[in-house]
Order: sequence, then structure tokens, then C-alpha cells
Amino acid sequence: MTSSSAPLRLYVPNDLVAGVEVDLSPDQARYLAQVMRRGVDDPVLLFNGRDGEWSGGLVGVTKKSAAVLLEQQMRVQEVECDLKLLFAPIKRNPTDLIVQKATELGVSVLQPVITQRTNSDRVKTDRLRAIAMEAAEQCGRMIVPDVREPAALLQVITDWPDDRVLFVMDETGGGDPVADVMAEHVGRNIGAAAFVIGPEGGFADTELDLLRSLPFSKFVSLGPRILRADTAALAALTCWQALCGDWRRGSD
Amino acid sequence: MTSSSAPLRLYVPNDLVAGVEVDLSPDQARYLAQVMRRGVDDPVLLFNGRDGEWSGGLVGVTKKSAAVLLEQQMRVQEVECDLKLLFAPIKRNPTDLIVQKATELGVSVLQPVITQRTNSDRVKTDRLRAIAMEAAEQCGRMIVPDVREPAALLQVITDWPDDRVLFVMDETGGGDPVADVMAEHVGRNIGAAAFVIGPEGGFADTELDLLRSLPFSKFVSLGPRILRADTAALAALTCWQALCGDWRRGSD
Repeated sequence: MTSSSAPLRLYVPNDLVAGVEVDLSPDQARYLAQVMRRGVDDPVLLFNGRDGEWSGGLVGVTKKSAAVLLEQQMRVQEVECDLKLLFAPIKRNPTDLIVQKATELGVSVLQPVITQRTNSDRVKTDRLRAIAMEAAEQCGRMIVPDVREPAALLQVITDWPDDRVLFVMDETGGGDPVADVMAEHVGRNIGAAAFVIGPEGGFADTELDLLRSLPFSKFVSLGPRILRADTAALAALTCWQALCGDWRRGSD
Repeated sequence: MTSSSAPLRLYVPNDLVAGVEVDLSPDQARYLAQVMRRGVDDPVLLFNGRDGEWSGGLVGVTKKSAAVLLEQQMRVQEVECDLKLLFAPIKRNPTDLIVQKATELGVSVLQPVITQRTNSDRVKTDRLRAIAMEAAEQCGRMIVPDVREPAALLQVITDWPDDRVLFVMDETGGGDPVADVMAEHVGRNIGAAAFVIGPEGGFADTELDLLRSLPFSKFVSLGPRILRADTAALAALTCWQALCGDWRRGSD
């Protein structure tokens, strides 16, 4: 063992079964060998979003390839909250931040939405997927959130299932306090919620009218200060997890 | 008027009185003239943390100096929640993020604390003060949070007032769900709360024992995932504002 550090945790697409050797990607091999200086027999944890979390040891590590010999399942696959975040892409750093933090906060689907005031040139979905994967690896999640391709707001809310509430973060001050609105959902176990955050310039009036007309939308206020879009996104997810989501476990 | 944009909002230390000319700093003058291309008579909003928010017009703008002729008070000074965030300084970007977002989320005091596992070389208080000021200007706050010089954890919790609860964000999983713990404080109007977030490696056992022994501490869990220190700081403030703080206004 070349290192006594805690085992690294990596996402792989492969099936996870005891005794099987799983090839890692070239990027993962380079990371293990060069950045983290790991070598043969060093422990690794793997997850794939289906088979739980598995321990294993490195077999054959070069700068270009590496594999893990799977030993045993350490955690079973958990059913997570089904949380969808619709966000208008903003500048690169705050968009990266939304993806990283929303992953830590347990989001399932990240859906960039194009609104009237969105500058849509900037969405690099591959980059966002890599950020979500790294955040999932580090925060101990058993899935990597699904980063979707950007789509128009109207398209995203078409064919919306009636039982998925859509919380609209309303910067115009028209919404009710977030704790009051979400309190109505505590213990209902509806299992699915969504949140939509506008672009820096806010939603256009026609978009707000459209969102207000939806039978599944709830307008929410996040207090008297003007929050940046990334702050609002993280605040919405935090409130949900604290009030209705998996941060309540142990309190029932 | 050289621009039709919304008035810029700036913090100044000066007293704000109708009819008085307030000199801006060289940095503010350069920002107005060169970055934002503002000129004589363009509207500006000023606040100083004491006299509310005032409107005025620019008089004399060069790249090095500018002044504002005060017209009238637009908002009176509000009493804000008294919220203290104790955080172990981490890397530069996440530390900057804590300061910016905590300001948006209504923190009053930002106190870097040196813990056993803190790398304390990195705290640039002046830089953090500039970030807090800019965030306060942009989010519409009437004060700039007080960014304190780093101090040892033990020193910070000495002479602590008994009526200020200290929520300890406990990554070891020992705390109760945040919504349950904070629910005990709803409507009590204790007026003052504090939050402490450990460094990336977590608190040392002796530090946890010390924090547990304090009569004013409450250990809080933020769910099953491993949150980064910056995420935990923002989640703690968000939960407080949503459940006990000024995000509830309008719900009483």
C-alpha cells in the first residue's frame, strides 16, 4: 500500500459484483496514479447508481489505466428523494457552484432552462456532468444527478406530472414564506418535488403569469434581501431537505 | 444622465443627511466612472449602517474622485437579526463564498476561528471585508457584516452570553435534525444566534467535547451526505432564516 489515506470513492458505469475486476477510465487512472499517488492493493470504493457501494483494491495502476478488484458491498443502494432543479444558466462560476452544491444537497435532476432573459451560450453540459460526478463521489451519494441538456422553460413544464409540486423562487416578493409553503408538504411523502430559479434579470412578466397559471406551482419567498440565483437555488434545496426531505430522518 | 440603468448602491462610512455632499472612495470613483460609465447627475443609493438608505445624484466624477449630493431617505434603518457565523477558514474560493453568501443570508458577524485542524495562513481579512461590502451593496442590506480578525476557538467561546445559542454543525452525525432543533427557537425572539462550522478535516475530539460541554451549544445534523464546509455554513444560515429569522415575515 503506497498510502494510508482513506479509500477514494469513484463512480463507474459498470455492474458491481464480488470478485469482478472493474476497469476505471483513463481520467480516473491518471487521478489515482499521479494526483493521489495510489498504487496496487490500495483500497477504493465504487458506486454505479444501482448496486450500492462496493470496496475493492487497485490491481494494475499506470498513468493511463487502472482496475479495481471488487471485494464486498459496503452499503446497499438507497432510494433517494426525487428532486428536480430547474435553473436558468448564469455565469460559469455560479453555474458550476449550483451543480456542485445541489449535488451535495441531494438533487436528482439538474435541468438548465432557457428563459427570455437567459444567455444560453454558456451551458457546457459535459463540464457540469463532471462536476456533478465529482461532488457525488465526495459527498457519499449513491447516485450521480442527471444533468440534462438545456431546454426552453415552456418545453420543460409541458407534460408535467400533477403530483410533482413546482416551487417557484419568486424574487418579485409575491410568494409566501418558504417555511410556511413547504410545511404543507411535511410528511405527505409525495416523493417528488421541483424548484425553478430564474436568471439574473429575473423571469419576464409573461413567464411569471405562465408559472402562476400552472396547477402544480407554488410561489415561494426567500426573505427581504435580493439573493443571487445560485444562493436562491441552494436555499430552496436546503429548506426542502431540512423541512420535508432526508435531513429529517431520525426525527420521526 | 449618461446611463438609464438602475441606480448603483454603495456603502459609505459618512453620516447621511439631506443636502450634504458625500465623497466616495477612489475605488468607488473608478468603479463608477470606468466600469459602470456613470456621470454627473446619475442616481446613486447610499447606506452607512446607521442612517437608512439615501438617494442622491453624482456631482463631479473623475477616475479618481466622485461625490454624491444627498437628496432624500428612501428606507429607514432596520433592526436585523443578530447572527454570528464562526467558521474555520478553508481554501480561498470557498472562504470567499462563505462571506459573500452569508452576507446575502443576513449574517451580522463573520468570525474566522482557528481550530486544531485549521490552516490559518490564508485569512486575508481585508479581502473578506471587501467581499462582504460588495455583497451587502448588491443584496440591498442596510449594514455590512462585521468581518473579525481570526481568533482561537477557545478564545471566541470565552465570555459567551448565555442567551446566544450556538448551533454546532456536527459532521460526526451526533446532532439532531436541524429543523427539529431550530423549531424550539421559533417565535422565542431571542434575537441572537450563532453557528459554528468546522474545518475540512472536522473538529478534533477534544474540540467536540469542549463544544458539547457548553451550556449554550446545540448539536445539529445536516442530513446523511457529507457537506463541504461552505455548503454547511450556508445551509445553517438558510435554515435559521427560513424557520426563525426574517424570511418568516409576513407569515405572522
